[in-house]
Amino acid sequence: MAKSDGRKFAIGVDYGTNSVRALVVDVADGAEIATHVYDYPGGEAGVLLDSKDPNLARQNPADYIEGFYKSVRRTVAAAKRKRGFQPDNVIGIGVDTTGSTPIPVDRDGTPLALLPKFKKRLAAQAWLWKDHTGHAEAAEITAKAKSDADRYLANCGGTYSSEWYWSKILHCKREDPKTFATAYSWVELADFIPAYITGNTNPHTMKRGICAAGHKAMYGAAWGGLPKPDFLAAIDPELAAVREHYSSEVVPANQVAGHLTATIAKKVGLPAGVTVAVGAFDAHMGAVGAGIRPGTLVKIIGTSTCDMMVAPMDRELPEIPGLCGVVPGSIIPGMYGLEAGQSAVGDIFNWFTRYLTPAKYGSKGDAHANLTRDAEKLEPGESGLLALDWNNGNRTILVDPLLTGLLIGQTLHTQAPEIYRALVEATAFGALTIINRFEEYGVKVEEVVNCGGIAEKNPFVMQIYADVCNRPMKISRSAQTCALGAAIFGAVVGGAYSSVQAAQERMTGVKKQAFHPHAGRAAVYAELYKLYRELHDAFGLPGQRDSLNRVMKELISIRNRVRKG
Amino acid sequence: MAKSDGRKFAIGVDYGTNSVRALVVDVADGAEIATHVYDYPGGEAGVLLDSKDPNLARQNPADYIEGFYKSVRRTVAAAKRKRGFQPDNVIGIGVDTTGSTPIPVDRDGTPLALLPKFKKRLAAQAWLWKDHTGHAEAAEITAKAKSDADRYLANCGGTYSSEWYWSKILHCKREDPKTFATAYSWVELADFIPAYITGNTNPHTMKRGICAAGHKAMYGAAWGGLPKPDFLAAIDPELAAVREHYSSEVVPANQVAGHLTATIAKKVGLPAGVTVAVGAFDAHMGAVGAGIRPGTLVKIIGTSTCDMMVAPMDRELPEIPGLCGVVPGSIIPGMYGLEAGQSAVGDIFNWFTRYLTPAKYGSKGDAHANLTRDAEKLEPGESGLLALDWNNGNRTILVDPLLTGLLIGQTLHTQAPEIYRALVEATAFGALTIINRFEEYGVKVEEVVNCGGIAEKNPFVMQIYADVCNRPMKISRSAQTCALGAAIFGAVVGGAYSSVQAAQERMTGVKKQAFHPHAGRAAVYAELYKLYRELHDAFGLPGQRDSLNRVMKELISIRNRVRKG
Repeated sequence: MAKSDGRKFAIGVDYGTNSVRALVVDVADGAEIATHVYDYPGGEAGVLLDSKDPNLARQNPADYIEGFYKSVRRTVAAAKRKRGFQPDNVIGIGVDTTGSTPIPVDRDGTPLALLPKFKKRLAAQAWLWKDHTGHAEAAEITAKAKSDADRYLANCGGTYSSEWYWSKILHCKREDPKTFATAYSWVELADFIPAYITGNTNPHTMKRGICAAGHKAMYGAAWGGLPKPDFLAAIDPELAAVREHYSSEVVPANQVAGHLTATIAKKVGLPAGVTVAVGAFDAHMGAVGAGIRPGTLVKIIGTSTCDMMVAPMDRELPEIPGLCGVVPGSIIPGMYGLEAGQSAVGDIFNWFTRYLTPAKYGSKGDAHANLTRDAEKLEPGESGLLALDWNNGNRTILVDPLLTGLLIGQTLHTQAPEIYRALVEATAFGALTIINRFEEYGVKVEEVVNCGGIAEKNPFVMQIYADVCNRPMKISRSAQTCALGAAIFGAVVGGAYSSVQAAQERMTGVKKQAFHPHAGRAAVYAELYKLYRELHDAFGLPGQRDSLNRVMKELISIRNRVRKG
Repeated sequence: MAKSDGRKFAIGVDYGTNSVRALVVDVADGAEIATHVYDYPGGEAGVLLDSKDPNLARQNPADYIEGFYKSVRRTVAAAKRKRGFQPDNVIGIGVDTTGSTPIPVDRDGTPLALLPKFKKRLAAQAWLWKDHTGHAEAAEITAKAKSDADRYLANCGGTYSSEWYWSKILHCKREDPKTFATAYSWVELADFIPAYITGNTNPHTMKRGICAAGHKAMYGAAWGGLPKPDFLAAIDPELAAVREHYSSEVVPANQVAGHLTATIAKKVGLPAGVTVAVGAFDAHMGAVGAGIRPGTLVKIIGTSTCDMMVAPMDRELPEIPGLCGVVPGSIIPGMYGLEAGQSAVGDIFNWFTRYLTPAKYGSKGDAHANLTRDAEKLEPGESGLLALDWNNGNRTILVDPLLTGLLIGQTLHTQAPEIYRALVEATAFGALTIINRFEEYGVKVEEVVNCGGIAEKNPFVMQIYADVCNRPMKISRSAQTCALGAAIFGAVVGGAYSSVQAAQERMTGVKKQAFHPHAGRAAVYAELYKLYRELHDAFGLPGQRDSLNRVMKELISIRNRVRKG
C-alpha cells in the first residue's frame, strides 16, 4: 500500500448534459490526481427525445445513479495507482449538476422512472435543463408573478423561464396528469444525488440546496421560502401541494447533506461515512473552481456561457435588470451569487461550420481550424460585417429566447472566414454587454477568469474577447473547474478548510499566460461596439408597434403558423 | 442559290460585357434564322482589369471591331445554310451595347487605343459600364448638379453615377491627364459601332443616340442638349471642351445612322449599303425585343436587372424618385423611356453558392440545382428568415451603391437552402418595390414580361416572383431579346415597318406558359413584404444621427479605413 504522507483528498462529481465526470483532487493545492468520464447510455448522447416535439429533453434517473457508481469507482481505482492516494484519505464529496433538472419522486423520494409502471413514461423521467416543453406555462407564471405584490421575479430578470422548476411541473400536469398525480414531490438533480448517496431521500427531510431553489424555484427569504400557497394555487390549485412536500431546510453547499452509505461506499471503493456536501449547479461550483471572489467575473464558455459573480452581502444590491438570477449563498455561502449568460456561443460557431461552410475549409474540427486561420488574418472592421449573437435568443441582458440572429454588411465579395470572425466578435460584444450591465449597477468587474472548452482551446476567440472587452482575459488553471469546484465543497465539508474562500485560496488559480488587449484593435472594436449596441437596442428592446423588435417577432409568428400548416 | 420567297431579314448585333452576339431574323415574324456569339479575346473574359484597383473595368475597342466582323460574318454564313435566306435580302442592321461605355477618340473618331502610342494605356481603352473608378467624381458632379438651377438630375433619381459618361471622363483627366488631353471627343460604344460600320466617325457629324446621351450624359431638351458650358466648367474648366466636340444631332434609334461601307460589307458577307440604325443600350433594345408598350414592365433578369417601361408623351410625367432615368425616345421613339433596376440578383445567388454553400450541395451549377431542390420544398415564411437584396447596393428606389446585405431570423437550425430561398425572396421583394414605385407615380403596370438568363432558365425564381408580386410573370418568347430588339430597329430603318410598335406587333411575343401567383403563398408574402419594407426603410433611408442607415454606412467607413491600413 502506498504511503499517504498525510495527504487528504476530496472528490468532485460533475453531472453534465451528456456525461458525468468524477475528479479526485489533493485538498492541499487542488492538484488533480485522477478523473473518469461516464457517458449516459440512454437516448441520444444521454438525452431522451421526442421526434414530435423538438422542445422535449428528458433524462433517465437510472443513468445518474449508474453514472455515480461508474465514474467514482473508476476514478478511485485510477487514483489508487498514483503515489500517495488512499481511499481512506478521501474526506469529502461534492456534487454539481445541470439545472433546473427536476425529477418527479414518490413519497420515499424514489424517482417515478425507477418504478416499473412509470419506466417508459417520458414525463416520469428527469426534466433536463434544456427541456422547453413548458414555454406556455412559463409565460403564464411570468404574467401571474408580474401582477403579484411579492416581486418573485425581481431577482431573476423579470421573466420566468421554460427551463425552470415550476414551468416543468405545471407542464407535467398538462402533458401527463397521471404522472403528475403520482409524483409526491419534485427534486432537483443537484439535490437528488447527495440525498441518494447519503441515504436520505425523504422529500421533507432531505437537504435541498439554495442554488437550485433560489435560482429556479423562486425560493426567497422575502416571502418565507417557496412562493406563497395562494400564489401557486392561483396558477393551479394542485401546485400548492408541491410546495407542501418540500424540505424544511434549504441550505448552501458548504453544509453537510449526509454521509456516504455503506452500500454505496462499497460499490465505489470508498470507506463508508465520507461526508457529502449539499449539491449545487455546475456553473456555480465551476465559478468556485475558477476562483470566483468579489470583483472577479468567471465566464464558463462552451456551447453557451454562464457568467458568474459574487457580491458581499453587507450592502444591498440594486435590482439588476436582465440577470438570470441573484441568490444569497448560491455560489459562495454568505455572498450574493449573480448569474448571467449568453444563450449560444460555441453553438453559433458550430452552426456556421456545420451548415454554411464550403468544402474548401473541410468539415467539423478542420473547418474551425481553417476558418480560424483565415479569420485571424483580418483586422477588426476589415470585413465590414456586424452580427448579433442571438441565434438561440438572448439570455442576458434581454431575457428573450425568441430573438434571432442578424448579419449585416455582406457584399458580393464576403467570404466564410469573414462571417466566422463576425460571429465570434458578436459573441464578444454580447460578453461585453454583460460586463457593462454588472458595472452599470455597481458590481465592479476587476478581473475576468475564463474556463470551459473554448477558453481552454481557442486562443483566437479569447484574443478577440480581450480586444473587444479591452481587458485581460485570464484562463482558469484547471480544465475541470466544475468538478474541481464540487471537490472544494467536499474539502470544506470534510473539514480541510473553514470556508470556501480559504479552500479557493489554495486549490484554485489562473494560468500564467493571459490574453491582453491590443490597443489599436480595442479602439476599432470600441467603435464597432457602439454600432452593435444600436442594432441590439433596435431589435432587442420591445418598443412601439413599428419597432424592429416587432419585425423579428412577427417573422417567428409567421414561421410558427406556416410550420403548423 | 436558294429561293428567297420575297422574305426580308434584319440583323441585330448585341454587345454584351463578355461577348458580342449577331442574330439574323425574318422581319415578317421575328423568326430567328441564325446566331453566333464571339467572345472578346482581351483581358479576363473580355475585361481589362487592374489588380491594384477593383473598381477598374476597361475594354479594348479593337475587340469590338473584330467582334463585329466575326459575329456577323459567321451568322450570315450560318443563315445562308437555311432555306430562304439571301444576304441580298438583309434590309437593315441594328446595334445595341452596354453602357455607359465611353471611348476616348481622336479628331477623326478613331479610338486612341488603336493608336500605337496609346495601345497599352488603360485610360485610352473603352471605359466599360461597370468601371467605378470615377466614384469620387460622381459625388462631385452630384453635389454640383444639386445646387444648380437646371435640375439636371431630376430625371435620373437625383444621383449621378460613377458608371456614367461625365464621371468617367473627369476621372480620366485625373488618372491619366495625357490621355485626357489627347482625346478630342468621347463616344459611347452604342454610337461608335454604327458610326464605324457606316464610315462616319467624325465626332461632330456622327449620329449619337438619345438613349446613351439622355440616360448617361445628362442630355436634355430643357437645357438645350448636354449640360450648359458654365455648369461643366464649374466642375472642371476642361470638361466644357468635351461638350464642344459633340454631335450636332442626337436622335432615337429608329433613325438611320448611315449605310454599311463596301469594305466592311465585304468582310461580313453582306451587300454594301445596308441601312444601319442609330445605336442604343442593350436593356432598352431588349425591352423592345420583349414587346414593351405602355403598361408593360419588361424585366431583364441576369446578374442584375433592368426594369423598363414606356409612357406616352401626351401627358407630363411626374418626377419619379429613385428611377435610373426617364428619357424621351430612349426606348420607343415618341414615348418616355423609363429605366429602373436592381444592382444584383443572379450575382447574389452566385455569391451564396460560391462562398457559403457546404460540400453536400455540390459546386457552381450543381449547387444552384441542389439548393433549389430543397428550397422549393419550403413554404413562404417557413424558414423565419428575411433578407435585404443589397449585397451590391440598391439602384432603384434608393439609388445608393453603398448599402450592404442583411439577413435576420437565423437560428441554430438554419440551413443553406433556407438562406438561398430568403435571398431569392429578397430580390423578389426588391422587384415589387420597383413595381410599386412606378404605380405610386401613376405609371400603371398592367403586365410583367421577363427575359434574360434567369427568366429563361429558373422556374423556381420566377414562381417566387409571381407569388411575391401577386401578378402573372410572363416570359418573352425570344431568348435573345436584346439582339432581337436591335434587329427590330434594323427592320424599321430598312423600311419593313413604319414604326417600332408596328414591328413589335409582328416580331415579338411571350411564351404561352406564364407563372401565375398562388393565392395562399401570395398572402403570406404580403405579410413578409411589410416586414421587408420596414427593414428597407430603417436601413435604407438616410435619417437622423441615430438611424440604422448610419450603422450600415459607418461599417463601410470603418472597413475602408482599416483596409487602407
